[in-house]
Amino acid sequence: MDERTGRAWSGRFDASPDEALDAINRSIGFDIRLWPQDIAGSRAHAAMLQQIGMLTIAERDAILGGLNQVESELAAGSFTVLPTDEDIHMAVERRLTELVGDPGRKLHTGRSRNDQVATDVRLFVREACADVRGRLALLVSRLAELALEHADAPMPAYTHLQRGMPTTLGHHLLAWAEMFLRDIERFGETGRRAGISPLGSGACVGSSLPLDREMTANLLGFHSITRNSLDGVADRDAVVEFLANASLLMVHLSRIGEEFVLWSTQEFNFVRLSDSVTTGSSMMPNKKNPDGAELLRGKAGRVVGSLTGLLVTLKGLPLAYNKDMQEDKEPLFDTVDTVTVCLNMLQVMLAGATFNRERMAAACSQYVNATDLCEALVRVGIPLREAHHRTGRLVSLAISRGCEIEALPLADVQAIAPEADPTMLEGLRLAAILDVKQVLGGTAPQRVRAEAEALSARLTRALEWATVA
Amino acid sequence: MDERTGRAWSGRFDASPDEALDAINRSIGFDIRLWPQDIAGSRAHAAMLQQIGMLTIAERDAILGGLNQVESELAAGSFTVLPTDEDIHMAVERRLTELVGDPGRKLHTGRSRNDQVATDVRLFVREACADVRGRLALLVSRLAELALEHADAPMPAYTHLQRGMPTTLGHHLLAWAEMFLRDIERFGETGRRAGISPLGSGACVGSSLPLDREMTANLLGFHSITRNSLDGVADRDAVVEFLANASLLMVHLSRIGEEFVLWSTQEFNFVRLSDSVTTGSSMMPNKKNPDGAELLRGKAGRVVGSLTGLLVTLKGLPLAYNKDMQEDKEPLFDTVDTVTVCLNMLQVMLAGATFNRERMAAACSQYVNATDLCEALVRVGIPLREAHHRTGRLVSLAISRGCEIEALPLADVQAIAPEADPTMLEGLRLAAILDVKQVLGGTAPQRVRAEAEALSARLTRALEWATVA
Amino acid sequence: MDERTGRAWSGRFDASPDEALDAINRSIGFDIRLWPQDIAGSRAHAAMLQQIGMLTIAERDAILGGLNQVESELAAGSFTVLPTDEDIHMAVERRLTELVGDPGRKLHTGRSRNDQVATDVRLFVREACADVRGRLALLVSRLAELALEHADAPMPAYTHLQRGMPTTLGHHLLAWAEMFLRDIERFGETGRRAGISPLGSGACVGSSLPLDREMTANLLGFHSITRNSLDGVADRDAVVEFLANASLLMVHLSRIGEEFVLWSTQEFNFVRLSDSVTTGSSMMPNKKNPDGAELLRGKAGRVVGSLTGLLVTLKGLPLAYNKDMQEDKEPLFDTVDTVTVCLNMLQVMLAGATFNRERMAAACSQYVNATDLCEALVRVGIPLREAHHRTGRLVSLAISRGCEIEALPLADVQAIAPEADPTMLEGLRLAAILDVKQVLGGTAPQRVRAEAEALSARLTRALEWATVA
Amino acid sequence: MDERTGRAWSGRFDASPDEALDAINRSIGFDIRLWPQDIAGSRAHAAMLQQIGMLTIAERDAILGGLNQVESELAAGSFTVLPTDEDIHMAVERRLTELVGDPGRKLHTGRSRNDQVATDVRLFVREACADVRGRLALLVSRLAELALEHADAPMPAYTHLQRGMPTTLGHHLLAWAEMFLRDIERFGETGRRAGISPLGSGACVGSSLPLDREMTANLLGFHSITRNSLDGVADRDAVVEFLANASLLMVHLSRIGEEFVLWSTQEFNFVRLSDSVTTGSSMMPNKKNPDGAELLRGKAGRVVGSLTGLLVTLKGLPLAYNKDMQEDKEPLFDTVDTVTVCLNMLQVMLAGATFNRERMAAACSQYVNATDLCEALVRVGIPLREAHHRTGRLVSLAISRGCEIEALPLADVQAIAPEADPTMLEGLRLAAILDVKQVLGGTAPQRVRAEAEALSARLTRALEWATVA
Repeated sequence: MDERTGRAWSGRFDASPDEALDAINRSIGFDIRLWPQDIAGSRAHAAMLQQIGMLTIAERDAILGGLNQVESELAAGSFTVLPTDEDIHMAVERRLTELVGDPGRKLHTGRSRNDQVATDVRLFVREACADVRGRLALLVSRLAELALEHADAPMPAYTHLQRGMPTTLGHHLLAWAEMFLRDIERFGETGRRAGISPLGSGACVGSSLPLDREMTANLLGFHSITRNSLDGVADRDAVVEFLANASLLMVHLSRIGEEFVLWSTQEFNFVRLSDSVTTGSSMMPNKKNPDGAELLRGKAGRVVGSLTGLLVTLKGLPLAYNKDMQEDKEPLFDTVDTVTVCLNMLQVMLAGATFNRERMAAACSQYVNATDLCEALVRVGIPLREAHHRTGRLVSLAISRGCEIEALPLADVQAIAPEADPTMLEGLRLAAILDVKQVLGGTAPQRVRAEAEALSARLTRALEWATVA
Repeated sequence: MDERTGRAWSGRFDASPDEALDAINRSIGFDIRLWPQDIAGSRAHAAMLQQIGMLTIAERDAILGGLNQVESELAAGSFTVLPTDEDIHMAVERRLTELVGDPGRKLHTGRSRNDQVATDVRLFVREACADVRGRLALLVSRLAELALEHADAPMPAYTHLQRGMPTTLGHHLLAWAEMFLRDIERFGETGRRAGISPLGSGACVGSSLPLDREMTANLLGFHSITRNSLDGVADRDAVVEFLANASLLMVHLSRIGEEFVLWSTQEFNFVRLSDSVTTGSSMMPNKKNPDGAELLRGKAGRVVGSLTGLLVTLKGLPLAYNKDMQEDKEPLFDTVDTVTVCLNMLQVMLAGATFNRERMAAACSQYVNATDLCEALVRVGIPLREAHHRTGRLVSLAISRGCEIEALPLADVQAIAPEADPTMLEGLRLAAILDVKQVLGGTAPQRVRAEAEALSARLTRALEWATVA
Repeated sequence: MDERTGRAWSGRFDASPDEALDAINRSIGFDIRLWPQDIAGSRAHAAMLQQIGMLTIAERDAILGGLNQVESELAAGSFTVLPTDEDIHMAVERRLTELVGDPGRKLHTGRSRNDQVATDVRLFVREACADVRGRLALLVSRLAELALEHADAPMPAYTHLQRGMPTTLGHHLLAWAEMFLRDIERFGETGRRAGISPLGSGACVGSSLPLDREMTANLLGFHSITRNSLDGVADRDAVVEFLANASLLMVHLSRIGEEFVLWSTQEFNFVRLSDSVTTGSSMMPNKKNPDGAELLRGKAGRVVGSLTGLLVTLKGLPLAYNKDMQEDKEPLFDTVDTVTVCLNMLQVMLAGATFNRERMAAACSQYVNATDLCEALVRVGIPLREAHHRTGRLVSLAISRGCEIEALPLADVQAIAPEADPTMLEGLRLAAILDVKQVLGGTAPQRVRAEAEALSARLTRALEWATVA
Repeated sequence: MDERTGRAWSGRFDASPDEALDAINRSIGFDIRLWPQDIAGSRAHAAMLQQIGMLTIAERDAILGGLNQVESELAAGSFTVLPTDEDIHMAVERRLTELVGDPGRKLHTGRSRNDQVATDVRLFVREACADVRGRLALLVSRLAELALEHADAPMPAYTHLQRGMPTTLGHHLLAWAEMFLRDIERFGETGRRAGISPLGSGACVGSSLPLDREMTANLLGFHSITRNSLDGVADRDAVVEFLANASLLMVHLSRIGEEFVLWSTQEFNFVRLSDSVTTGSSMMPNKKNPDGAELLRGKAGRVVGSLTGLLVTLKGLPLAYNKDMQEDKEPLFDTVDTVTVCLNMLQVMLAGATFNRERMAAACSQYVNATDLCEALVRVGIPLREAHHRTGRLVSLAISRGCEIEALPLADVQAIAPEADPTMLEGLRLAAILDVKQVLGGTAPQRVRAEAEALSARLTRALEWATVA
């Protein structure tokens, strides 16, 4: 440590950093969050340095003891950050050296902050992937339960937000589960790629010392090591992947949030959200606002923004490390936090939501059975296009009469579709048209139940996907 | 205040917010930054309420006195945020009511958080625009001084990062000033549009009370008022504009940062940055890294990300206020801070940069005078395309000889361009070709000086642009 | 022109471009759209070259005649693009030279594609700004008419998509007009900044020839000239500004599109869109889908994407011109086209929309008058917070009774709010509570009419804003 | 087909689409690109319809014959698009029906454009993933060859674009290969997820007909089928994933492009690009510009913009299909094309690049061996921090003397680092310090060779990753 500048690197410098540089450059304000990863990385590095003879056993033990103390202080919030601590890496080393003296000054042997931070970030991403997957799995399980419960509760399926054909609430909830299963896969893939150790890449070209990279990788739970030291310190793919996966997850949540917002309007009135996930107005005593659902929808913005921002920052950077890359951490941390609060929010919303099944069933009106009539005509041999056209004309007629198709006089129906018969019209009842959608993935209640029951096994497979034995 | 929920709006609610809702919904963690605007808005509102008879003078004075106390606590950092304080608006009202009782419970009369936060945000944006313009003006002035100092210091002008034709360092620095002048205009326009008061829009439709919106607007320094209450609470254009202006400013800074990074390489060696804006390596004792310049370049990412994020959030929201819009504040605050540290960083970098004029002048080689020869041939009547082609062939010849064009034997030159004469080749000297670029905006040193001197008046005009009398 | 490579610049080159380079590099496929600007620029340049003695009158006239011919061919679609035509600039010059010989080979004197394309793009942006403003003005006028027509048609004002307080359809439509007025201002500002001529900046440092930049600027309708040649060719601010303005405009359109989608659902049923702006389903004969409204909402994506893309491309580029900047044109063109079709779409949607005023009025239920009761209590002296709380309790009571507040027995009301009297409850009628919102910007029908009538003058001012005398 | 509107769905419509709707809504202008996928999907669907008894064998064969004819016309470019053809799906069906009559009108039985387009897009994405992987594999192989060739060619490794420590050109090129290997994995994962058939999801709820979804999936090479019909038509994850992968790939290419731009400057002069990937200037006869490399860098913008745009479009859409989702195709197609031209460009650039090995080796100066001295001191027992500090002081001393460290008099060296000896200074020679970087991933030439040789097997594994047996 240089007594003039307080910086570990200042041998060739004549002046301390300007406060404007500190303001733009110091990262300890946010990278302190990486302390668990940083301590873990240092433990592994110290153990390895002893193994290859760069530390004595006593030095290693002094370091490990000191790191325990530093960890305690960080965990307890009693760690004092000094104005000269640029980042968590230098802060830990500085404090360690205060505690244990010379062995602390040997810890950085064969290591650079470049590979150290790359290692810390990968450990963080790997853990974040696992955590997000766990939360998603809870949601998938919850949706499976709800889908079973509402497997036969009719509601309209919408396209273009117009009522299309009937489905069931259970079927709709399973659509959400599908999105989450894909998200689980993606975070698994990213977690796997994050699980490759860059430690030992040094500043950019490795080291002249006989570092044992596989040992540190094993100690840190990495499943393999990076094969090029320049890439090892220049690569931020895992962070970009995490943000891309999170952006897509947040788009999914935004769609679900939008549906909760719609469903809880006075106009739809499909769901009543619990008071505990809604708020009131400071001015309007009548209001009960679905804030939680709105923020599920709106918080997609910040995550997409973080992804965009990191791509902008990385674009056009030559190899290997550039200071710009320090900008990877804040979007990563903010995204982990955002995803976490959103997944929790959805879990709580689901727990307290009361679905208005009567209202949903009643909304299965206004010709949502027209396609079924069309297909009935097809089954008796009318070409689809002709059947479609005739049914369209029947819909027009029914609109002009202000009634549903099945309420039209048979003669009027047959004037347009001579093949129609009473059985055909009888088959347009809601329960009947749901039951016949037996195609795989369709809305027949027994099919919905089967898929809900199959979710558990599919979830298990998704959680196993891309993990490394 | 409801003793059960501690929320001002809970008359019709049976349960308190779930902690998952609080985690996603509470904004006091960041909107506390708006306290100065919030206090100012409340003062104006209270004064107006008294004027229209909704408060007595005593009530108004109690409120103003209480607000003074709340302001002191917030300024001193001694204000205690309670777990039930959702946002700065409710926190101030809650504390005010603790301090002054019933008058505090009247402050929100005719007001909603919807118009309150819209007012606070506009005040904040207006101030931020003014602050950024001031910092940009300092930079423009500094660049004008530097341009005068280096008006005749030759350096290559690059296109495609290949040396093109000679210019001067002064000329190059003036190009940076041009970008900043446009930025100043844009922030002025946004500041003007932010200067329109939404206060009095209420939750979304105004109020049944006879609010005097022009009075509050005047008290807060707004130059006019919004004309539609739905729009008044639904509009976040000023924030988007600020982020868009800031994104473009950051792109400018990223280009300047890139140039400092390039110029300080060992290969270019055009500038020596002061030790105070560079840092060292934890592993490589030889390193002196231009962190400040790199972050000028890299921090464009987060600002572009914030712009993108807010556009995503706002997209598709129906009128009027939606909770999603709460997501406007963090990107705004982060952008103001980022722009501020970056402008400061550039100011400090300029102060400590030592330009290597000899090296820059020496780099004016490798045929950067070819265009001047071409134009000399044009002046004696050769069509431009023919002159261009012949000069290209002369460049090829010179490359093959390993010399500059003017070092070729006259006979060899004339074999390709018979019109060439010794005077023409003599005119290819560096000083000569700089001097002849007399066209407006060109690189002749006297022209550079004239433009540097004209900057002061142009800066004044840019600062006056779009301000409201 | 080099017979070997067919390129104007190939004097020093030994090989033609690889087809992979052509595939990534040739821009004529899209920049041919700039031909009107390019021809205009060349006319002005030729006239100026004659004025300063670089062309004879005969040469100039030959060039102008040839340009007329080239223009005719381009306008008629009979212009033949050759494989060696890299861009519109070289294509025009090549064809001109075929037509008029040597004078054509002189046209590029004192000019570079760098300043030529900068000029063309600014001309294009200036025109696009004017065009978009014109279309927006038509919409504002139409909205003013509709607002007058529906000034007293009640509908709920929503916040959080929950019914808040009543407003009128006219008031709501005026909120849309407010957004467009701001858009008009912004495009005016950008048009003004685009109206500054970079022509004469040359490749990057101007020219050794005595170019008269003010003459060409005047001929092209620019109001002034750029003051630094490096900046003149490196600057793409006008394009970024256009895309930023367009992104914000598209966010506005997305909000309007979302409202049309919502309003045309079976659940809201506030509007019937004409058949001519809706489409059917290939499978479901009952469907009538609001495609136009959905695309108003969805096309925000591509414009925001174009803005982001250009910011990414420009980030970190050193001065002056870099080839990357060629990527400015496709997003610009696509955005102009997108904005144009969207504004036309909205105009047509408005023309054919039938608002269901009865349904909208009927939706003004479920306690949307609670705030009015609250303010009535405030008027008789109850502190706002207390009045809010009591009203909230009345809302709860009414919900439990399944009736509106005014249908509660007076005694029950007074049990919670003793100050309530029959007059107060009488004042909760829809017409009454609309009428009292007399505050500026509020929803009282007479106020809505006044604002609708004032729009014309405000539109005129917005159209004049930032134009240069 | 309706003779009035020419649309297949117009049974219940009274008016044709307005031209403003057609302008915003018709997709045939771009989705015609999906014709191979659309024909393939229709073949499979027809075969299945026959299998389940909805078509006779004769009808099926008529359809298959007709599709052959339609395919021929589309492949030959002789297919006539009618003004009433909204999209490729309706155009194919319309033409088929012209050719074969009633069987054509039966093809859409049990199918909707919603599941049809979802199927087409997934087929397209799956093929695009395979194609991009193939191009990346060629690049990896080429880089492996070049790395072997230049395994021992010294060059500086840069961090912060400052010379850090020596590496070899081969080692640097292998860093590029690492990025591409990860890209190959990601596109493999996306291709796998795209390989799941949504066909049979119908408009949103499946169908009342006994569709055999597994049969169509098998015929189209999908490895499984989607399990929820709402999700099947609402899901665009595969497109988002493709754009996210492509954005990251383009960021990689932008970094490589930046390096080629830097290396081909006169200042670095590390590489000479072939004439065939560079262009000249219309004004400056001396210029040779690295356009290909610049566009590798700049085209990241459009791809990131496309990703952002699609995320914006999808954000907040309720289930199931919405028209907004039509906006997925243009960014997808543009991205496939962009990635393709960029990968081709890089392949050609590599083929023609001449690396200036002498210049690169000479740039291994200015204290790039300082870290090696530091580590040598560590090896004799000096704590790293002390060794780093002393070496920093030696660098300062050498700078002041204008020489390299090893040229300092031994006594002066020992005054700062008493442990230094002649052997230690001898070990600072370039070849020596390269040779000792034996750590895995390091720069020792023998290690670089080993990694280059191992690439082939790793490439095979990456290509196999995530493929479905």
